Amino acid sequence: MRDFNEKTITDAVIQRFIGAGDPRVKQVCESLVRHVHDFVRDVRPSYEEWEYAIDFLTRTGQISGPARQEFILLSDTLGVSMLVDAINNPVDGKVTQSTVLGPWFVDDAPVFELGADISGAMRGEPAFVSGKIESEDGSPLAGASVDVWHSDDDGFYDVQQLDKLGGAAGRGRFTTDNEGRYWFWTIKPTRYPVPTDGPVGEMLHGQGRHPWRPAHLHFLIRAPGHRKLVTHIFDSTDPYLDSDAVFGVKDELVRDFAEHPAGVAPDGSRREAPFATIAFDFVVAKQG
Amino acid sequence: MRDFNEKTITDAVIQRFIGAGDPRVKQVCESLVRHVHDFVRDVRPSYEEWEYAIDFLTRTGQISGPARQEFILLSDTLGVSMLVDAINNPVDGKVTQSTVLGPWFVDDAPVFELGADISGAMRGEPAFVSGKIESEDGSPLAGASVDVWHSDDDGFYDVQQLDKLGGAAGRGRFTTDNEGRYWFWTIKPTRYPVPTDGPVGEMLHGQGRHPWRPAHLHFLIRAPGHRKLVTHIFDSTDPYLDSDAVFGVKDELVRDFAEHPAGVAPDGSRREAPFATIAFDFVVAKQG
Repeated sequence: MRDFNEKTITDAVIQRFIGAGDPRVKQVCESLVRHVHDFVRDVRPSYEEWEYAIDFLTRTGQISGPARQEFILLSDTLGVSMLVDAINNPVDGKVTQSTVLGPWFVDDAPVFELGADISGAMRGEPAFVSGKIESEDGSPLAGASVDVWHSDDDGFYDVQQLDKLGGAAGRGRFTTDNEGRYWFWTIKPTRYPVPTDGPVGEMLHGQGRHPWRPAHLHFLIRAPGHRKLVTHIFDSTDPYLDSDAVFGVKDELVRDFAEHPAGVAPDGSRREAPFATIAFDFVVAKQG
Repeated sequence: MRDFNEKTITDAVIQRFIGAGDPRVKQVCESLVRHVHDFVRDVRPSYEEWEYAIDFLTRTGQISGPARQEFILLSDTLGVSMLVDAINNPVDGKVTQSTVLGPWFVDDAPVFELGADISGAMRGEPAFVSGKIESEDGSPLAGASVDVWHSDDDGFYDVQQLDKLGGAAGRGRFTTDNEGRYWFWTIKPTRYPVPTDGPVGEMLHGQGRHPWRPAHLHFLIRAPGHRKLVTHIFDSTDPYLDSDAVFGVKDELVRDFAEHPAGVAPDGSRREAPFATIAFDFVVAKQG
């Protein structure tokens, strides 16, 4: 086949997939070509616009590395991540709702005992975080793995400032006790802008959007026989709850940080400075 | 706005573009979000498939560099480049048809006098290439800039093997004479596979496709007051003309290489070995 025009080329490309070994690969590639070609026919890019797109995508790959994932950020800021999340985690009214993983998860976070302080060299107001992990039938999940990570008062995660912090901070992995409980100390997270010094920042600027995410704690919860839960707890006082740059806010994930004067904390420890507390019980779905 | 589901998130994302300064940016981003979201809703990717896509795109950016452009190759092999080409260069029956630029163009090719041999350290059968550049009204275009580049007998371009070749080869820039003519010596190009050691090769393998392009010479022609023409001349004997991996073949761009025994060549030079000749007159569109 030769001499394709803007109408015939789409089927010509899809015809080439006839020998694909995996039917799922064939299905995804066919749909990709139809949708990408429809997009191109809709916007009718100039040659210069196509060159800009090639350069944008190339830079998005090249700025990514161990401590930054700009394609995840692109997926997040275009609502694609939350769409994939919605498809894979339909709301059923029982299990805790999920939200974006984001670009700052690390799968080998330091392991802590329950009750430890994970804030490391981060500065901020002390906060006591507690709750329990339950299965959808209401039974407590002992031995569940709870990863938590969050930003500091300057709006940065540890992996963005390892030189300054000297290692992991505001990040840790816990195992729930026999009653499915978890508790730990850290600092209150603050709102922060997603990185704007790369291609995604350029895109947000062009779209006339702000880059802010409301303050939140990330959780990733894994329990045997249950589905992995990736979610946040959001601070109810944050002004960006209704305009999260990555569309991740769900009402049931919003909680109040309670403020306390210096004194005895919920874990019986004596605090010399004011502190905050927040509690959240997570319900996870059985593996289906 | 909070608690988006797989139906509501698309409009929620597009709502954010209300402050975009440039209406074209707004239009392209809206269309992009609608089409990408439709694609995601159609294929309903698992979380692992989304992760694969993020990793694929990241690697596509990271393998690109001064001598390789994997995102152009991805655009080429998905038929996107030829679609953009078809949109921007509708066939009108007068001007020479265009085809893909491809990933191997270099904008500072060595400049040669008409009649020079540009093959450098490349090995292959000598070929004499000639023709003229005309405007769509039939007038010859003196002083037009003609870039040519092609692969060698091993199927590689100079920029893929600079160490071996010691510099540019099979690549040059000419200026047409007063009658709009160009002529030069080089070697006959051969068919070659697009690079398969990166993400695009992985994709072609999954799609069950071969990576071959039929033998061709690239041309990029620029003349004052006229539109840039990016095109090829294809070798009429090539077995891959009907299955070009990048969908670039157009019948009017296919030509015969004529084979000649040792003797006097069209430019009056005496050749000690057999050689080929090929001629092509290009017609370029007026700017406007």
